Amino acid sequence: MGSAVIVGPGDDCAVVRPVSGVDLLLTTDQLIEGRHYTPETPIDLIARKAIARSVSDIAAMGGRPLCALAAASLNTSFDQADELFDAMASWATRWACPLVGGDIAMTDGPTTLTVTIVGRPHNVRGPVLRADARPGDRVCVTGSLGGSLASGRHLTFEPRLDEATWLCDTLGDRLGALIDLSDGLGRDAGRIAAASNGHITLDAAAIPLADDVSDWRFAVGDGEDYELCFTVRGEAPTQTPTGVPIAVVGVVETGSGCLVQTSPANGVPAELIDVSNFGWDHHT
Amino acid sequence: MGSAVIVGPGDDCAVVRPVSGVDLLLTTDQLIEGRHYTPETPIDLIARKAIARSVSDIAAMGGRPLCALAAASLNTSFDQADELFDAMASWATRWACPLVGGDIAMTDGPTTLTVTIVGRPHNVRGPVLRADARPGDRVCVTGSLGGSLASGRHLTFEPRLDEATWLCDTLGDRLGALIDLSDGLGRDAGRIAAASNGHITLDAAAIPLADDVSDWRFAVGDGEDYELCFTVRGEAPTQTPTGVPIAVVGVVETGSGCLVQTSPANGVPAELIDVSNFGWDHHT
Repeated sequence: MGSAVIVGPGDDCAVVRPVSGVDLLLTTDQLIEGRHYTPETPIDLIARKAIARSVSDIAAMGGRPLCALAAASLNTSFDQADELFDAMASWATRWACPLVGGDIAMTDGPTTLTVTIVGRPHNVRGPVLRADARPGDRVCVTGSLGGSLASGRHLTFEPRLDEATWLCDTLGDRLGALIDLSDGLGRDAGRIAAASNGHITLDAAAIPLADDVSDWRFAVGDGEDYELCFTVRGEAPTQTPTGVPIAVVGVVETGSGCLVQTSPANGVPAELIDVSNFGWDHHT
Repeated sequence: MGSAVIVGPGDDCAVVRPVSGVDLLLTTDQLIEGRHYTPETPIDLIARKAIARSVSDIAAMGGRPLCALAAASLNTSFDQADELFDAMASWATRWACPLVGGDIAMTDGPTTLTVTIVGRPHNVRGPVLRADARPGDRVCVTGSLGGSLASGRHLTFEPRLDEATWLCDTLGDRLGALIDLSDGLGRDAGRIAAASNGHITLDAAAIPLADDVSDWRFAVGDGEDYELCFTVRGEAPTQTPTGVPIAVVGVVETGSGCLVQTSPANGVPAELIDVSNFGWDHHT
């Protein structure tokens, strides 16, 4: 017995093959009160984010979710367990991954939700890995970046499932690496560079900023955007059929690391800034 | 997309069918410092129990594990994260379910490990449910019961994977319901009774006691034995090929609930005692 492990720890999802011809995507993530949401957040939005983050990891492999499991360690002061699980079940159904199991406990620590999602990769393209970028690829992002925590968008983002599927459908093998932007474009593009043994240069002026964001540094460093970052060979699309804009923000080259190239402005000369540790790392 | 959900929440594992002919078992469980182990427990035994409990849930469906994911919320005073994950990976490999993914965070709460395991049901018998008992079935347990927490056996038990597979192989459709004894024979046999819409009477004198246990009440109520409890039509085996004794401890009848029948002793008359809430519920 035992399944073939196609991709182990280190990408957005693991890929395992229980039987020939059937690959599964697997991801597990924790949502922690006081770190990923504030105590006054409505139950429905806590539940939404817990499910949506893991759904986004499935999108980050180009896949679709199949089902979800949720474990909850609830602070003893939390008395809405049923409401929370009902809301998680509802959001899981919304993204076509029924909540099929769970575990619940009360502790004196912060309320923590651990969501595991099982998915399937794209049936033609297969799993799209962080390691699939090549020198010459364009680096693209969906949507606009920055200010997610301050604005509350981190609670209401729509995982880019349909967009990821469309990229696989449309670009096929022209689609290189794919990741979702959880820790900021700097760190996450840096992860593509590292996994692909390449170097990425981002163009500060090309990075699409959210309406309430004034500086590329926030777009690169804030994190929790849950937009897609991908690389493409040849022409990049400019928009998804769902109306989400796509921006070319950089290029993959030989080398290592992830830099932002700024333009000269207001007497400040152009700079090359290492951003591969620039993002907010919410895992520590 | 979306998978068929064959068994949803409420059994030891969920059962989903991502593609026709391929069923998966899914279980997620939390191991919490101060509840499931004491702070001075060696790292290797914490890791072992975190993996073994979920492996036991796969055994409780008659299945075999395929792969595991682990999420850890570590108390900020805990500084052995690498050692802990290495140990979980090692134990997961021991039970043929490689650790393929994880998530880690530091909190000010108790260290909590959430382990999700994906497995496959028996290839002939299929998933063995709590709901599969019928009136007339004998109720059996493997091994001996009670005193697991006090003795430390809750840290070193061997999940009954081979024994569960052998029961499926040998008994086929004569094997009725199956569960692992995590919360005590009273509660867990009560769960078989409830899921199967039947009644179970246990014979106090037939319950196999661990060497350091003196009274059936401990064997029924202590919990954390991680032995198998199953029902069988016709003759029950007396021992597994791995040398684990099997005891017939009761019978399934029409009705509801789970009672223990005692014998008269020392002037105390025989009693029928409801034990369906007798176990230690470590989920709350």
